[in-house]
Amino acid sequence: MSSPTSSSYHPLDLAGAIVYARQRPELREIFRAGEELEASEVGDGNLNLVFKVWAKADPRRTVVLKQALPYLRLVGEGWPLPTDRARIEAEALKIQFRLVPAHTPRLFFYDPEMFLTVMQNLDRHLIMRKGLIQGIRYPRFAEHIGVFLARTLGATSDLVLDYKTKKELVVQFTNPELCKITEDLVFTEPYRPTARNNFPPEIEIQVLALQSDESLRVEVAKMKEKFMTHAQALVHGDLHTGSIMVNNEETFAIDPEFAFYGPMGFDIGAVIGNLFLNYAAHEVRTPDPTARAAFRRYLIEMVTELWETFVREFQRTVWDQVDPVNFPLDYQEYYLLNILQDAAGMGACKMMRRVIGLAGVADLRGIENRADQALASSLALNMGQALLKKREQMHGIHDLIAVATACQPSYPWKH
Amino acid sequence: MSSPTSSSYHPLDLAGAIVYARQRPELREIFRAGEELEASEVGDGNLNLVFKVWAKADPRRTVVLKQALPYLRLVGEGWPLPTDRARIEAEALKIQFRLVPAHTPRLFFYDPEMFLTVMQNLDRHLIMRKGLIQGIRYPRFAEHIGVFLARTLGATSDLVLDYKTKKELVVQFTNPELCKITEDLVFTEPYRPTARNNFPPEIEIQVLALQSDESLRVEVAKMKEKFMTHAQALVHGDLHTGSIMVNNEETFAIDPEFAFYGPMGFDIGAVIGNLFLNYAAHEVRTPDPTARAAFRRYLIEMVTELWETFVREFQRTVWDQVDPVNFPLDYQEYYLLNILQDAAGMGACKMMRRVIGLAGVADLRGIENRADQALASSLALNMGQALLKKREQMHGIHDLIAVATACQPSYPWKH
Repeated sequence: MSSPTSSSYHPLDLAGAIVYARQRPELREIFRAGEELEASEVGDGNLNLVFKVWAKADPRRTVVLKQALPYLRLVGEGWPLPTDRARIEAEALKIQFRLVPAHTPRLFFYDPEMFLTVMQNLDRHLIMRKGLIQGIRYPRFAEHIGVFLARTLGATSDLVLDYKTKKELVVQFTNPELCKITEDLVFTEPYRPTARNNFPPEIEIQVLALQSDESLRVEVAKMKEKFMTHAQALVHGDLHTGSIMVNNEETFAIDPEFAFYGPMGFDIGAVIGNLFLNYAAHEVRTPDPTARAAFRRYLIEMVTELWETFVREFQRTVWDQVDPVNFPLDYQEYYLLNILQDAAGMGACKMMRRVIGLAGVADLRGIENRADQALASSLALNMGQALLKKREQMHGIHDLIAVATACQPSYPWKH
Repeated sequence: MSSPTSSSYHPLDLAGAIVYARQRPELREIFRAGEELEASEVGDGNLNLVFKVWAKADPRRTVVLKQALPYLRLVGEGWPLPTDRARIEAEALKIQFRLVPAHTPRLFFYDPEMFLTVMQNLDRHLIMRKGLIQGIRYPRFAEHIGVFLARTLGATSDLVLDYKTKKELVVQFTNPELCKITEDLVFTEPYRPTARNNFPPEIEIQVLALQSDESLRVEVAKMKEKFMTHAQALVHGDLHTGSIMVNNEETFAIDPEFAFYGPMGFDIGAVIGNLFLNYAAHEVRTPDPTARAAFRRYLIEMVTELWETFVREFQRTVWDQVDPVNFPLDYQEYYLLNILQDAAGMGACKMMRRVIGLAGVADLRGIENRADQALASSLALNMGQALLKKREQMHGIHDLIAVATACQPSYPWKH
């Protein structure tokens, strides 16, 4: 599972990326022999080098090179990370492309010596999170991502795969180091005082109250156990709005390096939780009440449409295919309700960790006024708490939305 | 995961077993160079050849040779089975011996070329099922098996292991072919009319009623999903009373070739379910009401003691070691209650399959009078149904016992 860097591995620089792209036979359909190429480095992540390479004569002929670094870039060489995640990402992309080519970037090839993936350059698309922060609406996003979730999760589960293929995929996508990051940062550290936590000091009282709420920690522990043991489907594993590229017509899920066999609700909760984080941020980002209400209505409609598309597509591609004697209708309903409740609980943990934990999101941490940031963060925290604690009373997506939208910020303190 | 037979593989016969035992350097501590050995074949299973080999001069110096056949013996070469299960069994024995040497046969070595395991000969012990059928009492059994369950399940779970070791063990114990047998025979075929089912014709009406009960099939589907996706601990995977060797002083769990990462409740349910099958059988096996009540009291006391020992040992070896901030007391209680309810539901499926499905148990199918066999089978079926359907109302082992012991046979029909 872990793979030490190979002897021919070396991190690329800009010039190296051009040389590399020019010499690979797999790219002959994109770049003509000997023609001049240009490149830029665009990596904003911590784990990888990312280059765009294009033909100078025709910038529409372009690819992205993504190379795994053997350490966490932000921290430096002190936090080594297995380059095996590059293999995981390439293999997950391959499966996702087969299942949902419309919403998965095309993989040209994976170079196991260089831990390097060459894929479609999504240069006419924006990171969804950036669009949401700017208040841009994407009319097809919810439907597209609902389809992506239903097809990638349904078709990789025991409901569709034969007993052997599923178990071989579990082995293939064993991803301990990247799962460990989630186990620590999403399900452990935010709920206790730890050195790496990083939240607005103004809401310290609220954070301490949350951390001392034992009934909340019980529910977090249940979610963590599900994450660690419920090998239900090949999940993307990091499907926040920063891992989705959009424009008016198209939607792509990128960066599945955290992929592993886990609970379906983890992916669905990631999308919903991040839409709710944006919902909380607009508490201060959109001061005009009418404009704020309108954008939030749009966010809520996306949550509804995403879930309803997921259910419809799951019905068509999974339930319509199974034997109803061994999978009766009531079981199918129970199964979907469990996914919904898992999505609420796991999305909730992802919301809380973005407020309290090491890694934040631009929606909240990009708010410059400190009191404003504290207020929006306080609201996000209350939404997360409520979604986690009330998930078992939810019987449909409207219950989930009602729980989230009923929340208020605790900061500034009323007393 | 699957391993075709190697080129040097050949099934042993009696003479071959003696030659093999004599030449292996790993057995020099048992057998002296050149001394005369004797052997007998004792395999009563379908999957393997089993030989006892001993020194003619001192039969106490003895070992067991267990060799995997590449096909199901009962059916012949038409049902191939991967010999990789021999590796699984040997590696599971090694881990179980490290965790509970008192209740695991000692493994001398595993020969990967011959798919052959050499282990301790438990020649002063009886198969638990045979003892129970004869009405023999084993005063230490419940305590021993409770300890075995707590230590093997607790110490291989995420509660004790680090993130990486656990996931490596999941890979190591990926066991698709043998899991498939359980998926089909325990969780699928008994609940629909299928060619392989095999039950007393007298209770056909009861079986058909059960198979047409959709609410029961919903609960079976939940149990099957848990079996297939809940990678909670390294389970034995086939811990019925035929896989346990006992005498007055000692208890050993043998034959872990079905081992894989699954729900803890599956192992616990296997033991409890098989004790209840015996309970049902004594409805006709022990006609005297006083004697029957006394033996059943003993069976019930074993169920109670097994569970209470499990909880006590799990407390000592697991909960006392974890951080109560991230694993609060209420979570620990929830976790154990889930194991109990899983044990009820999975044990129930194992009971029903032993009545309806392909492979029965001697407790019931060994009853010669047909009406008697039908009556005891009818009771076992009702116990299984009740345990499965009422498991979520159980809050302790006494609830589980109350549900099982309240059942009556439906056959002979009252109307």
